[in-house]
Amino acid sequence: MRHHPARLIAKKRDGGMLSADELQDLVSGVVDGSLGDAQLGAFLMSVCCNGMTPEETAALTLAMRDSGRVLSHDHIPKQKIDKHSTGGVGDKVSLLLAPLLAAAGVAVPMVSGRGLGHTGGTIDKLASIPGYSTDLSLDRFGEVLEQCGYAMLSPSGDIAPADRRMYATRDISGTVESIPLITSSILSKKLAEGIDGLVMDVKFGRASFMQEEHDAVQLMEGLVATGRAAGIKMSALLTDMDHPLGLAIGNSLEVLEVLTALEGSCPDDLREVTLALGIEMLLLAGEAPDADAARATLTRLWDDGIVRQVFCDNLALQGGDVRLLDDHSMLGRAPHVVAVEAMRSGFITDVDPLALGHVVVDLGGGRRQPTDEVDPHVGIVLRKVLGDEVQTGDVIAFVHASTDLAGRDAAHAVMAAMPIGDERGRRRPLIKKRLG
Amino acid sequence: MRHHPARLIAKKRDGGMLSADELQDLVSGVVDGSLGDAQLGAFLMSVCCNGMTPEETAALTLAMRDSGRVLSHDHIPKQKIDKHSTGGVGDKVSLLLAPLLAAAGVAVPMVSGRGLGHTGGTIDKLASIPGYSTDLSLDRFGEVLEQCGYAMLSPSGDIAPADRRMYATRDISGTVESIPLITSSILSKKLAEGIDGLVMDVKFGRASFMQEEHDAVQLMEGLVATGRAAGIKMSALLTDMDHPLGLAIGNSLEVLEVLTALEGSCPDDLREVTLALGIEMLLLAGEAPDADAARATLTRLWDDGIVRQVFCDNLALQGGDVRLLDDHSMLGRAPHVVAVEAMRSGFITDVDPLALGHVVVDLGGGRRQPTDEVDPHVGIVLRKVLGDEVQTGDVIAFVHASTDLAGRDAAHAVMAAMPIGDERGRRRPLIKKRLG
Repeated sequence: MRHHPARLIAKKRDGGMLSADELQDLVSGVVDGSLGDAQLGAFLMSVCCNGMTPEETAALTLAMRDSGRVLSHDHIPKQKIDKHSTGGVGDKVSLLLAPLLAAAGVAVPMVSGRGLGHTGGTIDKLASIPGYSTDLSLDRFGEVLEQCGYAMLSPSGDIAPADRRMYATRDISGTVESIPLITSSILSKKLAEGIDGLVMDVKFGRASFMQEEHDAVQLMEGLVATGRAAGIKMSALLTDMDHPLGLAIGNSLEVLEVLTALEGSCPDDLREVTLALGIEMLLLAGEAPDADAARATLTRLWDDGIVRQVFCDNLALQGGDVRLLDDHSMLGRAPHVVAVEAMRSGFITDVDPLALGHVVVDLGGGRRQPTDEVDPHVGIVLRKVLGDEVQTGDVIAFVHASTDLAGRDAAHAVMAAMPIGDERGRRRPLIKKRLG
Repeated sequence: MRHHPARLIAKKRDGGMLSADELQDLVSGVVDGSLGDAQLGAFLMSVCCNGMTPEETAALTLAMRDSGRVLSHDHIPKQKIDKHSTGGVGDKVSLLLAPLLAAAGVAVPMVSGRGLGHTGGTIDKLASIPGYSTDLSLDRFGEVLEQCGYAMLSPSGDIAPADRRMYATRDISGTVESIPLITSSILSKKLAEGIDGLVMDVKFGRASFMQEEHDAVQLMEGLVATGRAAGIKMSALLTDMDHPLGLAIGNSLEVLEVLTALEGSCPDDLREVTLALGIEMLLLAGEAPDADAARATLTRLWDDGIVRQVFCDNLALQGGDVRLLDDHSMLGRAPHVVAVEAMRSGFITDVDPLALGHVVVDLGGGRRQPTDEVDPHVGIVLRKVLGDEVQTGDVIAFVHASTDLAGRDAAHAVMAAMPIGDERGRRRPLIKKRLG
């Protein structure tokens, strides 16, 4: 580092504003190790406590992007648009959205993350498909993108390495909850994908990172402003994560739900969020004159099976077995399936996504630590959702587990997470706000 | 750790108050390493940004004290009183004060620090005495204390080990400037000495840690309140560090000034600060009815040579050669002495202690890094002080250096630090405030 680390840190500690040059120097120290762990922890906390201006956040984001390889797909004559979600329970939207937009003529170079805690990760879901690999070279990533319109990549050390260390440090040091740090972490990786535009799916509600709508709106605004300051087109939706999205929670169970959805049978909430985000992406790409036209295009591609075909093309290119589309049993399944039955008649008054997310982690389907192995087959499939009427003995969910005991434990927890009462509850709107 | 580190850190990040139990847990993590560097850096920064209540500071201090061995000198039937200074340039007060108070019947168990940056350390000054060792076992420390009334110890791993790691971490991570952290660092070590009372010498002015009087007063109040909450008697003086104390700056040069002072020839400012702190210590010990009586006692012991005899006794007990008292040349000297001469006639209008402190570091007499070696012989001896009249060609200071070139470079810097003008300046009062 060219500057003295403690001086830069003290500047932010005292509420000062760091220049682009100073932030670049800090990020170079993150990558080459000349900024030690204690210094990094102190710096991150100083940002948590004192915030950053939009200019600082943009400069930090660009420095983090430039800490590794920045992809370019200039040889592909399409708009490159991606979507990123702040993470939810049962959120398999990316698996549908990428082929949907590819079918509509947009290139989707998607670098996704692994799951941590109660939120799942797209890479873990894809890893449950036998043979499918997201561990591509960056060259191969570009080839797949060109050939089928989308490509899925797990984060490699080449992409924004500064974020890798900063993210791991934040996770252990109580410095996760900071809008500038969240913003720069998300956008540095996305900007390195070589995209022209990004649609953010910012979740709020119990199972989201931002439980309060106010905080989520702030994050949404910060992301859009910072992305634009960094030179890409941005729009964002604020979507509800007060209930799981779709019916399946767990890696291969969610893939199964995606396969079924591609065949035309998709839970309403999943279809609504997927289309809403798809419309934003198509509008950013300039491939539709307005939202209604975009919806019509995407609906037609989905319902006509074109999206399923693009999914199949990508599956083949990334090492999967295309017979999967006709034989879902190739996904395998957990050895024990336990039915969760209603103990009384009434209505499902809640489906607590945070509790269900934790159940899946307990079953082995998610990670407590970044180094944990994930069991692809375990999880939960809901049979009832908020407001559904049930009779005593009705199955409200199935638990898929690796042992009978784990399944029974999980069933108890699922029952507690899905209380039954006398009043029919209603789900609040899925799309709360749009920033475009 | 029993608590999750990130949760405790996030609590302080969000402005919460940590319980004694939580602070104890954090300190145990500091000592056993289960709190990682990044976590420690983030925690320290959260305290910098959000502060601590007096109760939290006291609880942190006690936890840090109890992280190592806590001494007890119950077998010595005297009050055990120590003094601690926040650090200055030319501050050799401890070397005079310890034998002074010992001569007056007080036990002074003094654990001192090494110097860092422009402020010197008592241990470095003592280390310049041939044979003298501050590297005593804790048992031997107690024996020396009993036999001559005072003992000097360099900090060992046994005393407040939590502070050792926290201090090193603060130094590199921009988390030094925090009153609760400074307070707990100072007091945890002092409380572990097994003292009944402590007098704090809080410096303010250019060469002090707290350059603003307001900040220094806050620190002073925090130290007194926290020390009392931890169960010892406390008083504090706010003293001026806008000029060097005494005429010598540099380790063996300062010891030489102490030897001369013990013989009765002491610069006024050094004598005034030493007596003022000594009076506070004697009052805390209950060995004098009031300040005037305390002053009379101390002055008599000093002027009658009793203090010099106690110094001699301690010297012998800690491995020094007592012939030093009659043969100061045993201290050795730097090979090159360069005179700094006035370039014009007039008055010395300033003696910048910060600049002079840095000159001594540049000469090799101080540390930039905690691991630096210190040259005991280099330094500066002032021949003129603020307000003195000089003629062109008068020697205003001598530089003691290891090479002629280093000496000449230093002489230029000393000249710049001691400007000569037409108006006779006056030094502001040495003792600015008392809190007792």
